Formats: sequence, C-alpha cells, structure tokens
Amino acid sequence: MDQLKVRFLPHDRTITVPVGESLIRAAMAAGVHVNASCGGEGICGKCRVLIEEGEIIGGVTERLSAADIEKGYRLACLSKLSGDVTVRIPVESSIDTTALSRQYTPRQTAKIKTIDINTLKEQGIFIAPVVKVYIELPPPNAQDNLPDVTRLIRALKQKGDWHKLELTLPVIRRLPAILRENNFKVTATLVKAVRKSGKTRIINIQPGDTTVENYAVAMDIGTTTIYGQLINLDTGESLSEFGDFNGQISYGEDVISRIVYAEKPEGLKKLQEVVVASINKILKKIIAHAKIDRENIATITLAGNTTMTQLLLNIDPRYIRRAPYVPASTHYPPFSASSLGIDLDEHVTALLFPDISSYVGGDIVAGVMGSGMYRSEELVLFMDIGTNAEIVIGNKDWLACTACSAGPAFEGGGVEFGMRAAKGAIEDFSIDPLTCEPMLVTIGDVRPKGICGSGLITMIAVMFEAGIIDSRGKFDRSLNTSRIRQNNGIWEYVIAWAGETQIDRDIALTELDIDNLIRAKGAIYSGCMTLLEEVGLSVDMIERIILAGGFGSYIDLERAMTIGLLPEIDPEHVTYIGNGSLLGARMSSLTNKIRQDVIEVTRRMTNFELSETPSYMNNYVAAMFIPHTEIGKFPRLYERMKTKGK
Amino acid sequence: MDQLKVRFLPHDRTITVPVGESLIRAAMAAGVHVNASCGGEGICGKCRVLIEEGEIIGGVTERLSAADIEKGYRLACLSKLSGDVTVRIPVESSIDTTALSRQYTPRQTAKIKTIDINTLKEQGIFIAPVVKVYIELPPPNAQDNLPDVTRLIRALKQKGDWHKLELTLPVIRRLPAILRENNFKVTATLVKAVRKSGKTRIINIQPGDTTVENYAVAMDIGTTTIYGQLINLDTGESLSEFGDFNGQISYGEDVISRIVYAEKPEGLKKLQEVVVASINKILKKIIAHAKIDRENIATITLAGNTTMTQLLLNIDPRYIRRAPYVPASTHYPPFSASSLGIDLDEHVTALLFPDISSYVGGDIVAGVMGSGMYRSEELVLFMDIGTNAEIVIGNKDWLACTACSAGPAFEGGGVEFGMRAAKGAIEDFSIDPLTCEPMLVTIGDVRPKGICGSGLITMIAVMFEAGIIDSRGKFDRSLNTSRIRQNNGIWEYVIAWAGETQIDRDIALTELDIDNLIRAKGAIYSGCMTLLEEVGLSVDMIERIILAGGFGSYIDLERAMTIGLLPEIDPEHVTYIGNGSLLGARMSSLTNKIRQDVIEVTRRMTNFELSETPSYMNNYVAAMFIPHTEIGKFPRLYERMKTKGK
Repeated sequence: MDQLKVRFLPHDRTITVPVGESLIRAAMAAGVHVNASCGGEGICGKCRVLIEEGEIIGGVTERLSAADIEKGYRLACLSKLSGDVTVRIPVESSIDTTALSRQYTPRQTAKIKTIDINTLKEQGIFIAPVVKVYIELPPPNAQDNLPDVTRLIRALKQKGDWHKLELTLPVIRRLPAILRENNFKVTATLVKAVRKSGKTRIINIQPGDTTVENYAVAMDIGTTTIYGQLINLDTGESLSEFGDFNGQISYGEDVISRIVYAEKPEGLKKLQEVVVASINKILKKIIAHAKIDRENIATITLAGNTTMTQLLLNIDPRYIRRAPYVPASTHYPPFSASSLGIDLDEHVTALLFPDISSYVGGDIVAGVMGSGMYRSEELVLFMDIGTNAEIVIGNKDWLACTACSAGPAFEGGGVEFGMRAAKGAIEDFSIDPLTCEPMLVTIGDVRPKGICGSGLITMIAVMFEAGIIDSRGKFDRSLNTSRIRQNNGIWEYVIAWAGETQIDRDIALTELDIDNLIRAKGAIYSGCMTLLEEVGLSVDMIERIILAGGFGSYIDLERAMTIGLLPEIDPEHVTYIGNGSLLGARMSSLTNKIRQDVIEVTRRMTNFELSETPSYMNNYVAAMFIPHTEIGKFPRLYERMKTKGK
Repeated sequence: MDQLKVRFLPHDRTITVPVGESLIRAAMAAGVHVNASCGGEGICGKCRVLIEEGEIIGGVTERLSAADIEKGYRLACLSKLSGDVTVRIPVESSIDTTALSRQYTPRQTAKIKTIDINTLKEQGIFIAPVVKVYIELPPPNAQDNLPDVTRLIRALKQKGDWHKLELTLPVIRRLPAILRENNFKVTATLVKAVRKSGKTRIINIQPGDTTVENYAVAMDIGTTTIYGQLINLDTGESLSEFGDFNGQISYGEDVISRIVYAEKPEGLKKLQEVVVASINKILKKIIAHAKIDRENIATITLAGNTTMTQLLLNIDPRYIRRAPYVPASTHYPPFSASSLGIDLDEHVTALLFPDISSYVGGDIVAGVMGSGMYRSEELVLFMDIGTNAEIVIGNKDWLACTACSAGPAFEGGGVEFGMRAAKGAIEDFSIDPLTCEPMLVTIGDVRPKGICGSGLITMIAVMFEAGIIDSRGKFDRSLNTSRIRQNNGIWEYVIAWAGETQIDRDIALTELDIDNLIRAKGAIYSGCMTLLEEVGLSVDMIERIILAGGFGSYIDLERAMTIGLLPEIDPEHVTYIGNGSLLGARMSSLTNKIRQDVIEVTRRMTNFELSETPSYMNNYVAAMFIPHTEIGKFPRLYERMKTKGK
C-alpha cells in the first residue's frame, strides 16, 4: 500500500500512514489530540483542523463556514489522506507547551506472527504427516501373483523409504477394483506415524494421479465460536477459513452452563450433536470455498478447551466444575472423524490436542505448540485473554500454566456501555488534559454505540496518564468539566453526549466500570506474578510476551502496560499469534513435529490452581491498582509519570 | 479307562483294549480277520468266534445254535469285553499258515498333540496378551487433582511394569462414573501390544475386582463348519467348544461357489451377514455353556481360508478364482469385532490370521503356528487334507507351501457309496485273502450305509496288500469270488450284500472309486514331492508329519502310507493336531508370541503354485499308482510285499 506523510503542527510531529487513511486516525496514531466525540460522522464538528500544505479529500461540511473552508479548515474525521500534507491543530483553549509535550505514544499493537511451510523447513521442524504417492504397478501374472496389497506395498517401498506400511480395511476392500479399473495406476495416501518407529497407514487409494490434491482441516472449537481452515498440505497454504458460532451457545454462554446442561438427561448427547453440526457447517463452507474434493482431505486436527473437547468426544464433563476440578482425561486417542458424526470420509483420522487440566485446555496447548514457545530460548509469557484468561510461562526447558477468571470486562461485559468489538465500538481514545475533551475513534468510523475491551483499556490508561483518574480508579472530582459528574451516586466521565451517539444516551465510563477492569486485569497480572513466584522468577525476567485470542490483536500494548494488564516490556518483544488454538491445529496438520513433541510438552507443563496457591490472593490485592501497588514494577511508566509531574 | 487283554488264536496275537470294547473292534485293532459284513448288528452272523478262556458280555443270538452257544461260540460283533479273554477264530475255509502270516499291522492313528499354558510357559513362549489388574486409587483432592485417566495410569505404573498405556474413548467415557460409584476400586483390562515397543491399551474398566474373569474366543471359520472355543486366559483352559455349519453352505458348498455368489448383486453383503450370524450363534452357545459374562471377553482370534477370511471382512474375493489367482490381501489389520456385526462388546478387538496366497489361507498359517512347526528343528511335513489339501514343508528356518485340489474323494465324494464320516460309514476293513470275505467296522456299529474317506483308504490298502487289486487299482479278475463282479461294465467288489445294509442295495467298491482315490492321493503326494524338489530335498528326509483337519484323526497311518497318500515314515513320528486352525487361534489368544512371530513366518513361507511348477505334472503321473511308480520310495511296504511274495 502506498504511504504518505502527515506533519502535525504545532506539535511538529510527522507520521507515515497508508494512502486513504482518515486524518483523525492519523492524528490518533501520531498521539496528537484533536477534540472529536462523534466517531467520525461529522456530527460534533469539533475536529476542525487547518490544512497548511498539500491536499486532502473530503472534510467539507455545513458545520464549517464558507470563510473557514476557504482558509483551508476541514473536519479531520471526514478527511481522507491522498498525499503528503501539513496539518495545524487549532489551539483554541488556553493551551501551554506543557500540554503539547504530554504527547501520547503512538498506538502500537503486537506484531503478528505468521507461519509458512518454508519457515518450518528452515527451522528443521517439517515432517510431512501425509504424503500422496502416485504409482504404476506391473499387473499380476502367473509368475508374479502377489496379493494386491503386497504388490502395492512392494511398489511403494521401491519408490520411497517406506517401511511398516499398513492398509486399513476399507482400502483393502476397494483396492482390487480400483487397480483393475485404472490399469494399475493409482495414488496412495500415506499417513505417517507420529513416531519414526510407528506404522505408516495407507488410508486411501485413488484412480490415477491425485498427488497434488493433498489437504487437511484444522479447527478451533471455541466456547463461542468455531473456526475452520482448509490447508494445502503441500504448500502449507490456507485455502479457506470460516468461523461461525458454536451452536451450543443456545444451551449456555460459558463452559459452566454447558456442563450444567450436559448433566441433564440426553444433555450430553444433544451438545455433542450440536457441536458436530456446527463443525459440519464450517466444513461445508471451507470445502466449497476452496473448491476441493472432500475425498482428498486426509486429516482433521482440532483444539478446544477441556470442556469443549470432552463435549465433542461425548465425555461427561461434570467433574470439571466440581472441586477438586478433575477432568475425565486430558489426552485422547486418535479417532475416526466420521465415527463422531463429523462429515468427512471414513478414512479421515481426527486428532485432538491434549489438555493440561480442567481449565487449561487443548486450545492453550495448541497455542504453546503453534507459537513455538515450547522451543524458545527466551523466557516467554503466553496469554490468551478472554472471559477466562490462560497464562503460560516458560521456555524450551520448563512451562508453568494457570487459568484465571478475568470476568467479562474485556469482552464488554460488566461495563455499563461495554460491547464486543463491533461496528460503533469506541476502540481508540485520547483526552485533552486541560479541557478534558475527548478524541475518539470507533470501529467502522460511525457514531459510537459503546466501548469495546481494547477501547476501555486505552481510555483508562490515557486518563490515568493525564491525571484524570488516580491509581485507585477514581476520577479527579476537582476538575472543571461537565463531563465528569455524579449520576445516581456513581462518578462517571461522559465520552459522548447523547446527540453524538447511535443510542441517544450519553455514553459514559463509570467508576464501577473502571473497578471491573481493574479486577479483571488484576486477576490476570496476579496470575502471572504467582506463576513466576512459584518458579522462583520475577517479572523483569520476561523476555517475550505472546498474545493469543481475538482480543490480543486490538490491544494497545503501551496502554495495556499502563493499566498493569501486561508486565512492562519493549512492545517490540510482544508477538500476537491470533487464534492460537487454530494456529496450533494448523501447525500440527502440517508437520508431525508438533505431535511428536506435544506429549512431552504436556508433561513438562506444570499446572497451578490459583485457588490452591496461597500467594495468589496477596498478589491479587496488590494488583488492584493502576498499574499496581508497586509502581517500581513498571519503570517506564514511572519515568513518564515523573516527567509529567504526576 | 480300565484295560484288558484279548488273546486271539490260532494267530496267537494278544492286544490290550479298554473294557467295554467290542470283540470285533479288538480283532480289527489286532489285525485279526474275522468275516463280518453287517457292521456289527448281528445280521450276517458270520463273525462266529469261540471264547476259550474268560467271559464276555453278549454275543448270543438266534443265529447261533444252542449247541454252539453251549460250546462257547459267540458273535464277535455283539460281544463286549469285560475281562481278559482268549478267543479262537474258527478257520472254516481251507486255510493255510501263509494266510495267517498275512497279518495286518494294527490300526494306528496319529498321536494327538495337545497344548496347555504350562507347556507354553516351559517353552518360554508365554507372553500374556491380556492382563486384568485390580487397583484401589486414592480419591482426588485439591493437592492431588490429576485427571481420572492420569490417576489410573499412575496407579497402574506403580503396580506393574506398564509403560505406554493408552485408553480407548469408550473407557475414558465410562471412567469417571465407574471410579466414583465404586469408591475408586476398579479392575482394568489391559491388552498388550504384540511388539514390546507398542502401546498397551486399556480396553475396559470394571467395578471392583474382576481379575479372575479373563476370557478370549478362538474361532475357526471353515468353509463347511465353524468351531468356537471359549478360553480362560489365566489357565489356558477351554471352557466350552461348539461347532456348527457355516450358514454360507446354503449359497454354495465350496469356496468357488461362494465366490461366484459373492459376485452377484448384494451377494458379498449377504454372505458376510450369514457368516457373522453363524459366528454369533456359536458365540451364544459357548458363552452360555461356560456361564461367563460376555463383558469379560477381551479378544477374539479367527482363522479361516483366504476366501472365508475375505468374505467375513466384506472384501470381494472375485480375483481368487481367476488366473493368476491374486487375493486382495493376505494380511489384515486388527478391527473392532462389533464393527463387523460380531456380537461382542465394543471393546473387543478381532484378529484374523494372515493368509499366504489365494489357496493357502489363515487356517493353514494358524496350524503351522499352533503346531509349533515353525519353531521345529526337525524337517516337518504338515498336511491338512480335505477337498483341498494344503501342504507345508519346512522347519524353523524355512517353509514352503502349496495347495492342491484333491477332489472330494476323502470326504466321500466321487465314490459311488462314499459318504462323510457319520453313523453307518465303513471306517475299518479287512479281507480274507483266500476267500475274499470282508470284515468291516462301521461308525456306530450299525449296518453299513456307505464308505467314509478313512475306510476307503484302508479298504484299498488292505486289498492291495492282499493282492486283490493291483498297483493300477484293478481287481484281480481271476479270483474265485462272487464279490468281485462286473456291473454295467465296471468292475467292483461287493463289501456288503443288500440285506446286510441300511440301504437295501449291495454296497460295493468300484474301480472308478479306486481311480478317484488314486487321483486324490496322487495329487497330494505329488504336491509334497514337488515342494521337496523345489527346495532340493527328498522324501526320505522328512522327520515328522503333522496332520491337521478332521480327516487326520481317523486315518490309519500305515494304510495311508500303503496307498501312497503319506510318505513312508515311522508312525510314531506322525502327530495329529486336530483342527489346526482352531489350535492356532487358541494359541494366539493365549500368548502374544504367536502374533509376534506370525508376520515373519508368513514372510518365510514360500508359496508354490503347482500349476506353474513344471515338475508337478510328472510327479502327478508317477503318483498315479499304488503306492507309486517307484516302489523304492516306500521301502517298508516293499519289504512286506516281498515277504508275502507279491
């Protein structure tokens, strides 16, 4: 994408952004505050800026006088950038240079880690799990009348370094006719054993040469959403990907309510059928979209949390929710996908990622495997943040993990105007420290409807650094602004006035909301602390953070550190892997190395039950501040605050 | 059983027989001829003998005059022995001492080889395939909250040298409830991998201690008959055994007609269902008879010929009957018994013996394994004689095998008065060389209905040694007896006159019958010769003969050598193993050693297609004589014939 430069005055800050970016987003990214509270629809008319050099597209509205337009004033939220420009932000309030110096760090999300088959090869961890081999067999005659199976195996051994080949009954049944109908020219699909000493299974035999059609399915079975990917096993490419709700949602929002439902008569059976139906719906989509033949899918690899895994396998999960939280199993044998009702050919083997405990599931193991954390020299903190946050700390030698209940704050729950990250959600925010006027950016650049998790983090971090809220999450009652007010006895900050919103109500952030977020981040941070203490380490030893889960992609890293959700670390050392569960499933589809290592990794992964770890409660209490009772744990923030004189 | 002595005069031959034996059978066993042609019902009245010392029970009939009875005459066929006796055979014809010297060797059948678990242990080949372990687990608590599966595995590893334990999904599903309902006291059924490096599968989990209930099923799937055995895996004991017809009989008598039927639409499916129904019928019987719980059966091992095996597995056997006679496969993966419709618990794995070729099947491989031939230092000839005869020659280092079509002569087919070995079948025979009067013994001691295979062999051997038929199988037309006659242009010998039979027709042996038998035995003998020649050996190097199959138990070894069916060898070195297929299946159920070795054995077993082996036709032509064109191959017979001046 073509890039352009925007210079902001009087700050004299220059930022490079892609052509087509809105001017208000460019300002936000540059850490330049422009009053703006309508989400970019030109309603509030506050984001008036002067274009001093260069041209922009749009930005003209009846909210600007003809004279202003003539002078070069535009509304930033309606302006699209098409070339280099210099933009002056009018300083209408009684501003001083101190205010200008209180510049925000640019928004920075984690770098996205991707994998491809060449990386696997370069790292020496590529071991093809499925190989298709085309062979032309000599037809049998009186002198050479080996059985069909033996003939096939002989030819395969001549062609490659295959040993311990084994055919499944369905293939044996089909072999004689396929050989004779196709002049003894066929393609065999070989599924290699995970271990070198194991047998290679010939799971399919097809007429002619179908070697280029070699596919697998990777799937993440989430409590809310299921994602499936169709993978080309030769190129590593993802040919199609779809996500859809897990149909079990109708039977309960979270794992606990699913377990409760599963305990009802026929409940388990129903939930199993429903999740399989959702899987089949996604399979249908990814297969149709990739335009491939279902028969050429050799394997399906799935990962999910412990409850999702057991519901899929028809294992009663009732003891997961009862102390001492003992799951039936954490490791599952491979099984025939069709035997569970999954709409794939009889020959497709399904593999499920093993779990660690009742609350650290296969989705997390998949993330640890897929991210490569388990092979890392560096000390890594792996976090998958959602309603439940799972934390893994360790490296190639050891791993410790735990799960903590963060509550729904990061997904918009328990926050008065909280919402999921969807159109109209406030995702970015800045504030004028003198006037307390906000600048906000919404998903889709429309009028705001609410605040999503990443918006909430940013908002609290920004207001904390601006001194508007204190470390206990309370607003400065002394500030002279109508935006900070008491409403039904609760203090709040009005982000957008009713007329600027989609909901015709003032959108506010309340002290209760802040408290909820502090509890959520406190639970997670103290989980990390406790894990570290249990293994005798401290937070400054963390060399890398890996974020997994949908939330991780939007999170503003610096802000997340400011509120004390993430330990402070150079944002360059934070990696985002997206859906770790899906990534792990995909990696495991592509190379047997993952499956070779996973059992050993699960053995190495020590699970801590926070409720059984005495230091957890102390850590939790200490983390109930912004960023923490011990500001020393956040040295960079401490430096910034000192500079600002706060 | 109590034994007694019978002394026959004037032969002065004494034999030891069990109390209760009939006098005529004792005479036959002693090689003492007594005219007798009614099968032991006292009809012909010819078997008049004089009891000189001791007492017998019965033998008195209106056919004897009061004076004769007073003197001590009795009918031998109606006399039961109860103590030592001396019996004189009246020599009513113009007998000379030569006649008496032409005594028959006593009937001698092969020694029966049995196995028990102690023998396996002594031979160092006992490796228990299924072990049940009772364990009392500590219930989980907050400090020890391992998953149920891990808890179980930990306890098993503490209790024994178990490694690589793996649970099946059904066991994982049942585990949590069973543990909690039984105070964590359970019995696990462990099925060990064939190879040491493999995984041990926990296939079942039961409340409390059920370790003493550890069973397996062994089954022989014959073309005609299916035999099943229920085996106690701890003692090796067979708790029950039943045989029943293979229901497929309605769809064709032999394998070829079954294959033809399987080629019809739905034919294969039908045959598969029918054989499974027969298996289930036998399972029901053996389980009921042994009074055990089906759930305690851990494995089923089956053996059958190649066609039977493939029909059971739903594999189209059509190419077995078409040149170049290529079966789909000769090795089959283990499978879930219930998946094929076999009425055993879901956890029962079925194992099928591998085949060698289209016509040397798993039944023969089972025989080779079960008999221990494959571990023999001696050079062994293994024969399973039926409509098709399978021959294996070799020892612990090498094995060569072939199948030859003997035709149905040994099962009574193609013989005018031939019948299966059933009540009324003439099973033993001797002849007075001067009068040509017969002595016959029938199964069940009833009037004769026909001649069974072993009777036929004896009859021809006896008449050949008596000079009544020549080496080409022709009757001596010069003999002065009404029993040898031409009927519709065919020469025959009347064994029993119509009035002495159950069928109200003269029962005769025709030259066509003899020709059929010569062809049958010639096919088998030349099969042996050809195999031996192919491996560069000769017939005199054979150190042991192992006979398998129903036929082998009845066969009179000396007579079988006389006609040239078996190579000449000390009868002490002939072993009969009964149903070799069932024996092998049972052995394989009892010890993993069999399964460890069988793949290697099938690799070592070189199959020869006789039709593709040029020397076979020459050998066949040379074998179309009694005993053979080269009498030198039968040195003991040659000596006997010289003595008799024949």
